[in-house]
Amino acid sequence: MNKAGYVAVDWGTSSFRLWLVDPAGSVLGERRSQEGMMAAGKLGFATVLQSHLDALGAANDLPVIICGMAGARQGWVEAGYIDTPAHLATVPARAVAVPGAARDIRILPGIAQRNPTAPDVMRGEETQLLGALGMDADNAVVCIPGTHSKWAVVKGGTVERFATFMTGELFSVVSRETILSHAVAGAEEAEDIGAFKSAVVAAFDTPALAANLLFQVRSSQLLYGGSPSAARERISGTLIGLELAAGLAGDRRRSGITLVASGRLQRMYQLALETLAVPVRSIDAEEAARRGLSMAAQAIWKL
Amino acid sequence: MNKAGYVAVDWGTSSFRLWLVDPAGSVLGERRSQEGMMAAGKLGFATVLQSHLDALGAANDLPVIICGMAGARQGWVEAGYIDTPAHLATVPARAVAVPGAARDIRILPGIAQRNPTAPDVMRGEETQLLGALGMDADNAVVCIPGTHSKWAVVKGGTVERFATFMTGELFSVVSRETILSHAVAGAEEAEDIGAFKSAVVAAFDTPALAANLLFQVRSSQLLYGGSPSAARERISGTLIGLELAAGLAGDRRRSGITLVASGRLQRMYQLALETLAVPVRSIDAEEAARRGLSMAAQAIWKL
Repeated sequence: MNKAGYVAVDWGTSSFRLWLVDPAGSVLGERRSQEGMMAAGKLGFATVLQSHLDALGAANDLPVIICGMAGARQGWVEAGYIDTPAHLATVPARAVAVPGAARDIRILPGIAQRNPTAPDVMRGEETQLLGALGMDADNAVVCIPGTHSKWAVVKGGTVERFATFMTGELFSVVSRETILSHAVAGAEEAEDIGAFKSAVVAAFDTPALAANLLFQVRSSQLLYGGSPSAARERISGTLIGLELAAGLAGDRRRSGITLVASGRLQRMYQLALETLAVPVRSIDAEEAARRGLSMAAQAIWKL
Repeated sequence: MNKAGYVAVDWGTSSFRLWLVDPAGSVLGERRSQEGMMAAGKLGFATVLQSHLDALGAANDLPVIICGMAGARQGWVEAGYIDTPAHLATVPARAVAVPGAARDIRILPGIAQRNPTAPDVMRGEETQLLGALGMDADNAVVCIPGTHSKWAVVKGGTVERFATFMTGELFSVVSRETILSHAVAGAEEAEDIGAFKSAVVAAFDTPALAANLLFQVRSSQLLYGGSPSAARERISGTLIGLELAAGLAGDRRRSGITLVASGRLQRMYQLALETLAVPVRSIDAEEAARRGLSMAAQAIWKL
């Protein structure tokens, strides 16, 4: 087994992922848990991190690079924001060291868009952008779907602007906490592709109708029947279609986008984009985070 | 005191309102409670109704006219739907009698739009439309804001088509159950008119950005500060502006609309419509329901 060079951690709001990595970037070990910022805030960030390092038998002097909500004000140590336009090379350069730690632990900053007409913040996605595009990226429009989906315009390694859409969180509360929860109750894992695609197109074509298209999930089931799975995909398709109506403004529908996603999100966004005939370059979200952390580690410690 | 002619009941999902009315339509007594369909389903509809009739000393032979969710499948007695195009005169004509009741109790039907590309249902609002416009209405576009806002196109007394927007319910879950709940925590009753109007205009102008404009409530507060009240009005304005972007399609922004609303909803929709320079004819929602029930009672019992 190769000797580990550093530890990479993607520490989100509700998830924790850790990789033990050799200097060349190969993964030697991995840990994942639900001890995100919320849980770790109670347990203690240092305690949570050390328990996972111990489980992998990581050496005491191994440095640790962290991205995500651990760097938020309510996280471990506040890592601040880089303002747009933000070159991705400044992300590792502006990492913040955890004071008083027994080993070298650095937390990467987020990016802020201090524009009063379009204020926005990201934390964690800057590392995925770095991993997905590298430091000298060509022009790319990147979509990173999730609880709070990010759309970023990157030119020559610089994040020029970005926008966050509450799509994932809206899906969660609309399907669980509104009258539509009855329509989706008992939905099986099976995805209703047809219902999803129709909903994407309807919301993309007439985004102003979003709140009406959502209610149609109920009235359609009431008047015509339909499965809970179809209802769930219709809610999902409506909200993703609404996001795409904004994200694909201008000539992006023709020039295409870079999709950074995994699992079901990857499948559904890819399907939505294909339905709208948008060229897609797809990159795995977890791989992008790990690669971004590795690039930051290389830049900081010259491994 | 005049002698009562009938009892009118607006029985919603979560609210109950009852009026004791003389044959000329004057209100002799009134009751209101939270015993809507949900609560009454457990207590028993007949029991709830009788308790309010007893409280007002209503005679045993007094007939009762009811609109709203008491006529839903999960209500007291299912009163079905009239299909669009639906003349408002058919609403009382299609009332359903409660079987086995000691007095004459009728429940008004809802209206259904059996159009697979725009399925929709209303129950209760048909009575408000009747009360607001009468049976021979001129052309009107009517907005009835609420948990599930209704927009109806009425021509010569006929509801030609309508659409439901989940605006009120979205406001409720977005401001209580998402990350934005932190931004609005501690909001005072005071309304931030400026924040509301800006949000209405932004969402009306670019409805596709709705899920982004919502997230801006958080990022704006994070980067620039701002009161919880401003955050709440910004969420409200964004969702109302999104609804208006669809509701005011075509030449409605010039020709104007009829607003059937009360209280805060009336104020905020009126303000939003004025901000967009839309002519508004405003009618109190509760008054519209009571008048609609009275017109139905007159039509059924020829009082």
